[in-house]
Amino acid sequence: MSYFTEAQSAEAVNARLGADIDPRLDRIMRSLVTHLHAFIKDVELTGEEWAKAIDFLTATGRICSAERQEFILLSDVLGASMLVDAINNRRPDKATQNTVLGPFHVAGAPVREIGESICLDGEGEACLFEGMVTDIAGRPVAGAEIDVWSDNADGFYDVQQPGVQPQWNNRGRFSQMLDATGRHPWRPAHTHFIVSAPGFDRLVTHTFVAGDAWLESDAVFGVKAPLIVDYEPTPDAATPWRCAFDFVLAPADA
Amino acid sequence: MSYFTEAQSAEAVNARLGADIDPRLDRIMRSLVTHLHAFIKDVELTGEEWAKAIDFLTATGRICSAERQEFILLSDVLGASMLVDAINNRRPDKATQNTVLGPFHVAGAPVREIGESICLDGEGEACLFEGMVTDIAGRPVAGAEIDVWSDNADGFYDVQQPGVQPQWNNRGRFSQMLDATGRHPWRPAHTHFIVSAPGFDRLVTHTFVAGDAWLESDAVFGVKAPLIVDYEPTPDAATPWRCAFDFVLAPADA
Repeated sequence: MSYFTEAQSAEAVNARLGADIDPRLDRIMRSLVTHLHAFIKDVELTGEEWAKAIDFLTATGRICSAERQEFILLSDVLGASMLVDAINNRRPDKATQNTVLGPFHVAGAPVREIGESICLDGEGEACLFEGMVTDIAGRPVAGAEIDVWSDNADGFYDVQQPGVQPQWNNRGRFSQMLDATGRHPWRPAHTHFIVSAPGFDRLVTHTFVAGDAWLESDAVFGVKAPLIVDYEPTPDAATPWRCAFDFVLAPADA
Repeated sequence: MSYFTEAQSAEAVNARLGADIDPRLDRIMRSLVTHLHAFIKDVELTGEEWAKAIDFLTATGRICSAERQEFILLSDVLGASMLVDAINNRRPDKATQNTVLGPFHVAGAPVREIGESICLDGEGEACLFEGMVTDIAGRPVAGAEIDVWSDNADGFYDVQQPGVQPQWNNRGRFSQMLDATGRHPWRPAHTHFIVSAPGFDRLVTHTFVAGDAWLESDAVFGVKAPLIVDYEPTPDAATPWRCAFDFVLAPADA
């Protein structure tokens, strides 16, 4: 019997995994422990740094609530969310690429007619969004549903504002980590979409506004070049902006 | 400018680190992101698994409180606490080895005379603990202080019992992870010590009771063979147990 030592630390922990556990859990835990220990050894983490990490996770947990999911945001700013998204949505070149879902999607939004506005409070400037949903050969897809969501004129998503004056409308905790690492907390302007149709991969994506100052430094790494779109001014005062973008769906078996 | 892709995901995240940040933080964050992404790629983590991980961290955060630090316990059961301890306390072979501090140490315990009992409630069976504090040449160390703590007859540390009926006296959350991985939540019987003396490395360690059923499967990997000690019965009804152990301190500059 050999007890835990620095040299075989990950092996000692992994040797403790039960023989009859779920094989996928076994695989994930072994890899997690191996990489976690490799990280600690690589930087020779000090006790003070370990304590800071514990405090950071504890503080992150403390400010999670029904409306605020800080562990998702942590995953986002570390690029983990985009990586999981990329691994699970490898698409043919011609198909529209996925990007992160984000924490603000709500299922069951009202069904609207083509051309109807999703802006209910009348704040901000309207933008006409137009385009097609096609397969990778460019043929229109029948039965497609487009689920779209965006923040309001104040920069908040509706689920972030259960009251008129939400108590939790800033992201101070993550600003601390981002500040310390010389990063800003902003995302480039974008619109969220889920596009689905029978026989095709569900597409979770954004369009990004071309020319936005934060395109090359999106805090959550969601930008992909083909998703950057011109939002053009129009002469129509009621709908002063216009955006054209076609969604290309990959077959479900790709 | 190249945006985030699966192939260069860690590089894309690390490229965002500021040029003027703390060099040690830069080193730690680069390594953390690199190993986190390598783990996700290694197991090709699915969206459902990622969501489970987020839920697990969120639930762990929710049950942390002033008396309960679940992120430390998570670090403990993954072997991370022992690894940080090992890296930061490399000692000469002859010196007593460190093990984990654990979450239940409280600074400022009352100073007691040699031979005095630390058991205040009269519960359980007394054990006489005897030994020396020496340097690695075996010479007694002057001015040594021994800080000792243990759980009570019920298996709780005093800080775990702010009231007579604490509401949080089980560890169900971790049992779920340990159950799923075929592990138990128990530690072998042990006594905590911090031994310090001017000119020597502060020693944080336990003694473990020889023959304990959990020695080879300590949930937090704290056992080291030289720390396993005989706790022997005595004919004295008032102090029915006896343990002899010498603490050997490494010089502060080792």
